[in-house]
Amino acid sequence: MSPTNNGSSSSEPFPPFDNNIHPHDSYDTDADELDLLDDTDSAAILGDDPLQQPLSFKRKQKQTGIFSQPARLFNALTGRGNAPRNSTDNPPPQPPQINTGATAATRLDYVAGNGGSKGDSLPTDWLAEGPGRRVGYEDLTAIDWIFEYTKERQRQRSLLSRTSSLGFPLLGFMQRILDASQVWVILILSGLAVGTLTAGIDVTTDWLGDIKYGFCSTVDGGAFYLSKAACCYGYDEISKCQGWKTWGSALGATSRGGAWFAEYAVYLVLAVTFALSASLLVKEYAVYAKHSGIPEIKTVLGGFIIKRFLGLWTLITKSLGLVLAVASGMWLGKEGPLVHVACCCANLFIKLFPSINNNEARKREVLSAAAASGISVAFGSPIGGVLFSLEQLSYYFPDKTMWQSFVCAMTAAMVLEAYDPFRSGKLVMYQVTYSSVWHSFELVPFVILGLLGGIYGGLFIKANMWVARWKKSASRLPGPVVQVIAVAVLTALLNYPNNYMRAQCSDLVSNLFSECSKLTDDQFGLCNTGAASAGTIILLIFAAVLGFFLAAITFGLQIPAGIILPSMAIGALVGRAIGIIMEIWQHNHPGFIAFRSCQPDVPCITPGIYAIIGAAAALGGVTRMTVSIVVIMFELTGALTYVLPIMVAVMISKWVGDAFSRRGIYESWIHFNEYPYLDNSEEIPIPDIPTSQIMTRIEYLVVLTATGHTIASLSSILESHPYRGFPVVSDPRDAILLGYISRAELSYILHASTQAPRLLPPETEAFFSHQPLADPGTTLDLRQWMDQTPLTLPSRSRLHLAVSYFQKLGLRYVLFVDRGVLQGLLTKKDVWYVLNGAEETRRTAGGGGGDLGREQLGVARESGEGESAGLLGVGGRDGDELEPVSPIGDTGSNLL
Amino acid sequence: MSPTNNGSSSSEPFPPFDNNIHPHDSYDTDADELDLLDDTDSAAILGDDPLQQPLSFKRKQKQTGIFSQPARLFNALTGRGNAPRNSTDNPPPQPPQINTGATAATRLDYVAGNGGSKGDSLPTDWLAEGPGRRVGYEDLTAIDWIFEYTKERQRQRSLLSRTSSLGFPLLGFMQRILDASQVWVILILSGLAVGTLTAGIDVTTDWLGDIKYGFCSTVDGGAFYLSKAACCYGYDEISKCQGWKTWGSALGATSRGGAWFAEYAVYLVLAVTFALSASLLVKEYAVYAKHSGIPEIKTVLGGFIIKRFLGLWTLITKSLGLVLAVASGMWLGKEGPLVHVACCCANLFIKLFPSINNNEARKREVLSAAAASGISVAFGSPIGGVLFSLEQLSYYFPDKTMWQSFVCAMTAAMVLEAYDPFRSGKLVMYQVTYSSVWHSFELVPFVILGLLGGIYGGLFIKANMWVARWKKSASRLPGPVVQVIAVAVLTALLNYPNNYMRAQCSDLVSNLFSECSKLTDDQFGLCNTGAASAGTIILLIFAAVLGFFLAAITFGLQIPAGIILPSMAIGALVGRAIGIIMEIWQHNHPGFIAFRSCQPDVPCITPGIYAIIGAAAALGGVTRMTVSIVVIMFELTGALTYVLPIMVAVMISKWVGDAFSRRGIYESWIHFNEYPYLDNSEEIPIPDIPTSQIMTRIEYLVVLTATGHTIASLSSILESHPYRGFPVVSDPRDAILLGYISRAELSYILHASTQAPRLLPPETEAFFSHQPLADPGTTLDLRQWMDQTPLTLPSRSRLHLAVSYFQKLGLRYVLFVDRGVLQGLLTKKDVWYVLNGAEETRRTAGGGGGDLGREQLGVARESGEGESAGLLGVGGRDGDELEPVSPIGDTGSNLL
Repeated sequence: MSPTNNGSSSSEPFPPFDNNIHPHDSYDTDADELDLLDDTDSAAILGDDPLQQPLSFKRKQKQTGIFSQPARLFNALTGRGNAPRNSTDNPPPQPPQINTGATAATRLDYVAGNGGSKGDSLPTDWLAEGPGRRVGYEDLTAIDWIFEYTKERQRQRSLLSRTSSLGFPLLGFMQRILDASQVWVILILSGLAVGTLTAGIDVTTDWLGDIKYGFCSTVDGGAFYLSKAACCYGYDEISKCQGWKTWGSALGATSRGGAWFAEYAVYLVLAVTFALSASLLVKEYAVYAKHSGIPEIKTVLGGFIIKRFLGLWTLITKSLGLVLAVASGMWLGKEGPLVHVACCCANLFIKLFPSINNNEARKREVLSAAAASGISVAFGSPIGGVLFSLEQLSYYFPDKTMWQSFVCAMTAAMVLEAYDPFRSGKLVMYQVTYSSVWHSFELVPFVILGLLGGIYGGLFIKANMWVARWKKSASRLPGPVVQVIAVAVLTALLNYPNNYMRAQCSDLVSNLFSECSKLTDDQFGLCNTGAASAGTIILLIFAAVLGFFLAAITFGLQIPAGIILPSMAIGALVGRAIGIIMEIWQHNHPGFIAFRSCQPDVPCITPGIYAIIGAAAALGGVTRMTVSIVVIMFELTGALTYVLPIMVAVMISKWVGDAFSRRGIYESWIHFNEYPYLDNSEEIPIPDIPTSQIMTRIEYLVVLTATGHTIASLSSILESHPYRGFPVVSDPRDAILLGYISRAELSYILHASTQAPRLLPPETEAFFSHQPLADPGTTLDLRQWMDQTPLTLPSRSRLHLAVSYFQKLGLRYVLFVDRGVLQGLLTKKDVWYVLNGAEETRRTAGGGGGDLGREQLGVARESGEGESAGLLGVGGRDGDELEPVSPIGDTGSNLL
Repeated sequence: MSPTNNGSSSSEPFPPFDNNIHPHDSYDTDADELDLLDDTDSAAILGDDPLQQPLSFKRKQKQTGIFSQPARLFNALTGRGNAPRNSTDNPPPQPPQINTGATAATRLDYVAGNGGSKGDSLPTDWLAEGPGRRVGYEDLTAIDWIFEYTKERQRQRSLLSRTSSLGFPLLGFMQRILDASQVWVILILSGLAVGTLTAGIDVTTDWLGDIKYGFCSTVDGGAFYLSKAACCYGYDEISKCQGWKTWGSALGATSRGGAWFAEYAVYLVLAVTFALSASLLVKEYAVYAKHSGIPEIKTVLGGFIIKRFLGLWTLITKSLGLVLAVASGMWLGKEGPLVHVACCCANLFIKLFPSINNNEARKREVLSAAAASGISVAFGSPIGGVLFSLEQLSYYFPDKTMWQSFVCAMTAAMVLEAYDPFRSGKLVMYQVTYSSVWHSFELVPFVILGLLGGIYGGLFIKANMWVARWKKSASRLPGPVVQVIAVAVLTALLNYPNNYMRAQCSDLVSNLFSECSKLTDDQFGLCNTGAASAGTIILLIFAAVLGFFLAAITFGLQIPAGIILPSMAIGALVGRAIGIIMEIWQHNHPGFIAFRSCQPDVPCITPGIYAIIGAAAALGGVTRMTVSIVVIMFELTGALTYVLPIMVAVMISKWVGDAFSRRGIYESWIHFNEYPYLDNSEEIPIPDIPTSQIMTRIEYLVVLTATGHTIASLSSILESHPYRGFPVVSDPRDAILLGYISRAELSYILHASTQAPRLLPPETEAFFSHQPLADPGTTLDLRQWMDQTPLTLPSRSRLHLAVSYFQKLGLRYVLFVDRGVLQGLLTKKDVWYVLNGAEETRRTAGGGGGDLGREQLGVARESGEGESAGLLGVGGRDGDELEPVSPIGDTGSNLL
């Protein structure tokens, strides 16, 4: 039987039927275990047979009404015991059960390849009642959290029953301990790897970064491979260091000007070379290594499959590319990319443990925990890393992840401390301590810093997204590598003349944070006093403004690049400038009423503290994080005293930033890339409409009927309709919902059944309901591949209930059913469209595709006509805003 | 029509019909707004009428089968348009709509009392389709999170539409800003109040605690109301202070021994007096002020109503009682109770803002944020407070709460710092800094401390729960006040002779944490060297052991008492002892291989650090928190250097503690008190059974039919059945689910309709479905009081799916429906029983009650017979473990 109509269901265009899918990929063991469990449980289900009910089953004698009769008639016709608790006069169909049981076992071979030894007595009726067997997820699809967690629970039960029956209780106990410790092994290994990698990246970046200015000569026992700091280790003032040769002197430039130009040229050439190398690496080996990776990690952790994003090649490319990109002196940081590196490491170790590797939900728990180690080593802040993961990345599992994050972040920090890459005993270059306290009048400049940070964040996001949109819409733009070169040349040209911008970002931040009284070597002239400090202020502000623009064009290029450190640098530049202004003011007018609390002859204002607070505020404005920033700053500076001012600045910065736009930089990029990330914060406006206005109604769905199909007809449906899945109903007249079969499973089993060993001909009958008269050897029972208990809602439910389902239960789709009759379908992606559409003003759709989106949402527009303006628009927008927004960009368009 | 049978539904015994419920309590405004919204939306619903469907409505011509015909016939018979999207030949019943609309408006008056001006044109069909109108929750019931969040969204929409239509956009914007700022006002006010209260509690506790030893005489300008520290402010060594008179010298004792005994006697009398006063306060004014309050707060935040638990009297009693209890010198802390105080403060301020006060879900968000301020001021650790709230208390809303907690905790800490109760510029008495670092060999003793902390935690929980169970089961035990006196006498007798135990817990901890080189006044002889230190070690260990037993009998008495500080003290005592041992060892054998990294002539071991780590480990073992403890210790000591060893110790302590029992002390108390707290961590074992084995089947439910009832018959059902709610079905033959009506709403409307202005006689017909021929003036339409879209699952779903529903969506009950036909019911409490039953070995049930539990779970046992052993038991327990566990203890037994 062909589908009831050719309308559109809620799925995307899909590549033509693919014979090369590899369903064996990762599901062997688990499919096996699932079946084993079904086996165990099935006996209980049969034990629960209505015939064995106690006599107090009082509704029995009442089931003689007009409704129960046809229902039973229907059951008899279709042969499906669809209401086992109600229809007591339907004896369990024993003989076909055994037959089809054998078939199930045979079918099992296709997936598990274990000779079917465990599936021998599988009763089909139970097998058919689970959430359905699954093949692996395809790239760029959403995962089914409920299914994954169910699988995990069943795996654990299976493990328990297997190990309990071993005869040796201790052995079973040990096996379970081993199983439980896998997560910890992965996390500790990841921590070790992340710590080691970061130490390597730190040292190499340092060296490569310094190579731009000069090199370590063999004088004084130095060596070519040493960074400036390592070369001059032991010197109080780095300018007195003999071993370090600048390129100017090495190239034999005699005049001061000549040396300057020679150095400028070498700097330019090396910077561009580094950037070019990074860009080529990314282009050639792993394009997913570009950018910071945090938007993608958020999306992956939210339950989306992006294959190769966390692969080995991505890891290698990102690590090398990061070293080169940072060394190039461009306005980018390594903090965000280190989170990506940490996730890649964890993902590699996950592959060692099939029980976690085969479960997408558990994998995400581990990844989310491992992400903490990235920030932990980036800032030497293990607790900050945990909170970052919690606040910024995690999606479903805060409590459990917190403890795991904690261990992973700690391990990584300990390893990094053991390597001591900066030879300072400190985890990061910019760790500082202050000897002074703050005064209450300073709250005023701190609040101003908070405001500035918020404004910076808001403007930066706008500028950065404007650049990204412009690049996307511009028709004749050079390729990504050329873009990188262009920005690198511009950056190098602008950076070198400004003393502050010439330095590596981390050096700059480190110096800006430091207290003048503790600075032995004032490279940047930050501690100048008197008239010289006016020049310092101007240079600082100038560097901040230039840095803003350079960072805005850099973040988004096809190189590994984070935004955290540039933001901190810009904030610290402004903060230091304000600190110096305050210092001068206090110095010149010590009698001013606010400065009464200052003690005479002691420095009252510490500009380094202003830099810290400015950095925190800028970071808060850009990322909209709160607690994690405070904790990171806290761990970075050890400045317990300064927690309160940092908190105030971050708080104000977030409020001001939120006034610009609700989205932080990462959310903006998620939105820009149209990743199907369903934010689970409660602040998204959800239109208050019934789901019946949004769902794809049954009239527009391609639905399958339980009977009347052949392998050929189903294959042709698959070929002609690109949708991700199909609801299955009893018959076209009376659309009683039986289940839902995903495209992946359907195409897999159709393909597998026509291959050896079954070799079914295309005209083989295929059905989704129990067919007692069918010969299991010559027909295809698709029930076990169908989700027989898809989650349903009544069609009159409000949209926000459906959104809660998607957000909290992690569904991929919800079916709407009124009294058993299918009414419609809503997918995660539909919800994503609606939420993003409801929030935005009308957007110009670019490009084609989005078939379903258009038709499906067209329905919503039609049915809501006239009324939808007031209903959908939050603030008088019209129904048209539900026009299909542009299709998923270059990142793929199959979003279900 | 009477209920189909007298079986048991899933609800508890319920006090007889109560005429004194106050449904006006808190729902006026919102009920009003809900109706207003229904009004707005109803037009859209009508606009969505099937008659206006486009002609592509392809299923129309197919609806001629045998099934759709009877369905329509049925609709015509009952007059209920139950499938508006499918039955297109049923025109909307216009005339009765207007009539019943007016009735709805009249009915609205009972709740909203607004003259019905807004409900004039309410179309009944839509009104009847919402989640139903509600009266307030009763005490000791669960809240409906979904309903509360829906209400909030509708309130916000209503606010938006009201303010948008004001004509002045700015005015509307301001109103919305004001509305959004309410949460912040509450939190900042709470922060101020908590900071102030804590300062008061700190100062008073200090003074009252010192009064036990002596008093401040007027010599030296002192005053009676000064604590010892305040009296002797300025003295380096407190023993040289002239103003402070001990009771021995004040009472004129001449001999040293006489003075000692006189002081002992005064100490004893005052300690017992304080404890007695605290106990009497609690007994007379607010029994909820007892204990730490954290188990109850967890339960409340998890969605349970405990009235008066956060009231003004509880706040006053807890604050005063806490001062007295702490001053009595018993082994209890003020940290946990301060969290309760913080929540009480927030709850008081919430009452100022009806829009939050009327929404139980939002209230819980605010409370959960405010709880952070309690720990913030207790430990001077704002970030620690936030993490404590997140890790230990919060349930549904980590992300949003984190930022709010942050603000509240910060405000409280700032206020407390401004009051400076300890005259030290520090937030708490035991804030310390260290000048040394740790050596890698010290990891070994740190790991040992972690192990000891875990063992302490596991044993303490066992001992404390054993005491609690013994007290519960003991038949002839004196009253709570006498118990308090007994423990107070015992504590005072044991405390005084031991130098360490005599001091206030916070003083002791402060001294144990401190570094010898920084201690100007070594009151406790902790810095003795040589032979004297052996005595110190023995005294320390002795104090720890005695403290363990005293704390185990104290925690659970009817006085405000926390367990955090005693645990820290015990851990610190042991830690300090081990630290001193290490110090002696290193001092005597400096050549030992492990001590090579020590520098000569510099103290290598700092015993204070061991005390810190011991305290962290003990706290970890008792509470099973991880990240929050590390952060608290971090903020307490400013010891960034020591984060890693603290982490290791806490980690090991948690692992060891978890090996004893999965539950921390607070979870153990929740379990002991049988609070219906549904832990949402994923580690609870959930039996892998279909819900059909657990649910109360329809045969055992009291269900209402849509028609055939009168007010009198419904009242008699309410009187004869104590259940919390009743599913409503179409008719007894064919149990098509129409909705669910809660007892509270049903009893309210039945009562209200027989009073003025309606004055309906008891024989008035009452129905739950649309009755076009009924006169709305003389009949009672109950539809708007019924939840017409209760969440449903198919009965063959697995239990863990249902548990996910309860945990993640926050439901109170789930109905099981197969193809529209009601199959059974599962309540939150049933799930709680099953989860707690599945986890425990069989428990001896005490007392009666739990009717439903017994019958309902009896079903599960029957149906699962034979198979359930393997299915339910995790590790070979038998099906009998699902026997009703003991009913809810003294805290109330209505758990739905």
